[in-house]
Amino acid sequence: MSKVTKDIEAPLAKVFSYIDENKGKFVETLSQAVAIKSVSADPTLRNEVFKMMEWAKTKLLALGAVVELCDIGSQVLDGKNVPLPPVLLGSLGKNPKKTTVCLYGHLDVQPADKSDGWATEPFVLTERDDKLFGRGSTDDKGPVLGWLHAIEAFQNTGSELPVNLKFVFEGMEESGSIGLDKLLMKQKETFFNDVDFVCISDSYWLGTEKPCLTYGLRGMCCFGIEIEGSSKDLHSGMFGGIVYEAMSDLIYVLSQLVDIKGNILIPGINEGVEPLSEKEKELYNKIKFDVDHYCNEIGAYKPLKETKEELLMSNWRYPSLSIHGIEGAFSGSGFKTVIPRKVIGKFSIRLVPNQDPSRIAQIAKAYINKIWEDRQSPNKLNIITEGDGGNPWMTDPFNAHYLAAHNATEMVYSIEPDYTRGGGSIPVTLTLQEVTGKNVLLLPMGAGDDGAHSQNEKIDVRNYIEGTKLMAAYLHEVSKIK
Amino acid sequence: MSKVTKDIEAPLAKVFSYIDENKGKFVETLSQAVAIKSVSADPTLRNEVFKMMEWAKTKLLALGAVVELCDIGSQVLDGKNVPLPPVLLGSLGKNPKKTTVCLYGHLDVQPADKSDGWATEPFVLTERDDKLFGRGSTDDKGPVLGWLHAIEAFQNTGSELPVNLKFVFEGMEESGSIGLDKLLMKQKETFFNDVDFVCISDSYWLGTEKPCLTYGLRGMCCFGIEIEGSSKDLHSGMFGGIVYEAMSDLIYVLSQLVDIKGNILIPGINEGVEPLSEKEKELYNKIKFDVDHYCNEIGAYKPLKETKEELLMSNWRYPSLSIHGIEGAFSGSGFKTVIPRKVIGKFSIRLVPNQDPSRIAQIAKAYINKIWEDRQSPNKLNIITEGDGGNPWMTDPFNAHYLAAHNATEMVYSIEPDYTRGGGSIPVTLTLQEVTGKNVLLLPMGAGDDGAHSQNEKIDVRNYIEGTKLMAAYLHEVSKIK
Repeated sequence: MSKVTKDIEAPLAKVFSYIDENKGKFVETLSQAVAIKSVSADPTLRNEVFKMMEWAKTKLLALGAVVELCDIGSQVLDGKNVPLPPVLLGSLGKNPKKTTVCLYGHLDVQPADKSDGWATEPFVLTERDDKLFGRGSTDDKGPVLGWLHAIEAFQNTGSELPVNLKFVFEGMEESGSIGLDKLLMKQKETFFNDVDFVCISDSYWLGTEKPCLTYGLRGMCCFGIEIEGSSKDLHSGMFGGIVYEAMSDLIYVLSQLVDIKGNILIPGINEGVEPLSEKEKELYNKIKFDVDHYCNEIGAYKPLKETKEELLMSNWRYPSLSIHGIEGAFSGSGFKTVIPRKVIGKFSIRLVPNQDPSRIAQIAKAYINKIWEDRQSPNKLNIITEGDGGNPWMTDPFNAHYLAAHNATEMVYSIEPDYTRGGGSIPVTLTLQEVTGKNVLLLPMGAGDDGAHSQNEKIDVRNYIEGTKLMAAYLHEVSKIK
Repeated sequence: MSKVTKDIEAPLAKVFSYIDENKGKFVETLSQAVAIKSVSADPTLRNEVFKMMEWAKTKLLALGAVVELCDIGSQVLDGKNVPLPPVLLGSLGKNPKKTTVCLYGHLDVQPADKSDGWATEPFVLTERDDKLFGRGSTDDKGPVLGWLHAIEAFQNTGSELPVNLKFVFEGMEESGSIGLDKLLMKQKETFFNDVDFVCISDSYWLGTEKPCLTYGLRGMCCFGIEIEGSSKDLHSGMFGGIVYEAMSDLIYVLSQLVDIKGNILIPGINEGVEPLSEKEKELYNKIKFDVDHYCNEIGAYKPLKETKEELLMSNWRYPSLSIHGIEGAFSGSGFKTVIPRKVIGKFSIRLVPNQDPSRIAQIAKAYINKIWEDRQSPNKLNIITEGDGGNPWMTDPFNAHYLAAHNATEMVYSIEPDYTRGGGSIPVTLTLQEVTGKNVLLLPMGAGDDGAHSQNEKIDVRNYIEGTKLMAAYLHEVSKIK
């Protein structure tokens, strides 16, 4: 990696010093946030999510923001009507001469229990080896606090906040962001009408050494192939050799989806995939990515592609298909000699920029129907799709907004950021792009090994502190655009 | 069906009348037995199985039998040490001039709960439309009581019991008959040394109208194909296109096992299958079996074979392969975009007479290893087999023992019985054949629609009563052989 030396402009020098000096306090604030068990998937902990949103409201008020906890109704969970946590909308500053940046983050977390394999109590932030372990430390309480601390650093060092800010903090991100899109769409002409840029810090570096700016995400279509062979589960002794088994049919259909090299066998599945430009190709060459280390981390025997570039492209710019499992078949340990009456094979296709989920779903369905017709099974097939699928997202990273983040990164980390995409989806990215009509930047704080949804989720102390500086530097740089 | 008229020999006329006259009492006895929740799979109900064995002991003692409840130790169930219910061994009569018949039955039952979809309380025997609904009514408390009532009928009508009897009643049949084989093998030279014939009433008519004698059962090999792709479950967004997915590998291997017509694709899988003799072929032609009705009953769209004969042969005299499910993959409802780290595909092969489970397992493993080698996946494969597999069983039904049962059937039902086999396994059949060295007959009492392991298990009042007469007639006929 080649070092870059960039001068730290005033007032950032003071801001950075403040952040360094207040490291202990910032860690303490994160431990308060982590202690609130705001697991959105667990209805018995819903009050904790409410508490978390109130906590964040108090923090924003202390910074001088105008805030509102917006009621977004209720949901049915485990058969009960459960109120949804409010969405926190806030504004700080309304100087028409300043750039207005909209920041998104979420304050709910994934479920966690020590018995799942945590080395420490998940809701007690624990520092070990310069890492802060705890649920939500990196996803996404740490990054949300990063923004608040960056603002505090400007304010407490006598520097004027260089931009106006809008905050969108939600409490349902880990549970499908129910109710969020509807609320945001309604605010298009009001809350969002003066936003110039959107910045989301809810993604991760590719590895552990080099920061990155993320400019693309994949979309998704989910499919269920339901095959029904009989009206009852049957005993394989009594009925083996008598019936056309639904499982044999399903296994056959699933076997026709993808080959050993991960190539999707559905004709036309690459429809819409953009050609690789020279400029984009160069981005891949520069990226720091150790394939062997990456495979070792997850215990994979061999990567699907030979080179770093091919592998990243395979995950970011080409569709991939994964088979997740089968509903209705025997899934326990041991043996149960059942011929299941109805089975549903679940798979999904990750879509890439310029692909339309409904069009891809149509292509996939036509293919499956053709496979089925050729098989001539008397059993019944039904193809299930989940909602409308998720759209892919991509922005051209060669713009002033990304350049501001690029400069900020060089200032803090003394290195050029990598330009990355994500293989997964962050649906709010598209929503915020739509309601503001402005450019969206994904600016990660955490590292690739933080284990966002896993046991022992952590954020490195260094990234938590330097990431806060990066946020401050980003606000400084982005203020110069307008 | 052509009617057969057979004279009812004395003393059977009196015995049959007694059975008819005591119908109400016999139904009442069955309701007492059904009320004992002797579910062997449920450790919290283990005391009920003990109670059931005690109840049966009392009944046998009342008939004048010498009985012993044999302790067979304990098992580990749900992590706890649980005592096994004793096996009830009994003897009634030891006249060296008489034939000695060994009767087997079991007094434990499958789990049942009204909420599973029962129309009546499963442990309250309920008569509706001349059917007796209740768990264990047909499997196997009804048939066990049939034997006891047949003996009572001889005794209470002043007729000498025509045979000596040995009883083997167990309480673990629905949970793999743990401990039974070991006990029986130990008794080979003692309890079993004077047995002439073995009769088991724990199977069913093929349909609902015509009684049958069963002369063959299939064996079984169970397989687990375990494929490991990584050391953690992975998110399909972050890792789709990066790794060789274990599920794709597994689906491929499973797809190479059986074709649309149920033909097993493993070369050599028919090794040992006996050629079809003319004599055996004739048995199939005579069998009463309505294919359409059979398919309708289970809601299957079409049978795997065109003719009745082909279909029965496919289930009885040729191996079949069923895929049961996958352990380790997502099996819930909805969608979870996971790339499972390790998956185990479960399938079994039903073996037919003259096939050796260990030899077939060897053939199947070699084939799977070949498929796997050709695929060239970097993932890890491990083939799991369950125990030693179960041996198939068959006897030549053209013998004096089956003829005795044939005559008894004609006497009670005025019709020739069908000669059937079963597609499933009853392992004790082989054990009793081995420890006695004598011919074993399967003499069903219940009908094909009794729903032995299903909700709303029942036995028809007619079959319960006529079946008891059949047992009496069988004892009478078999006594003439020696």
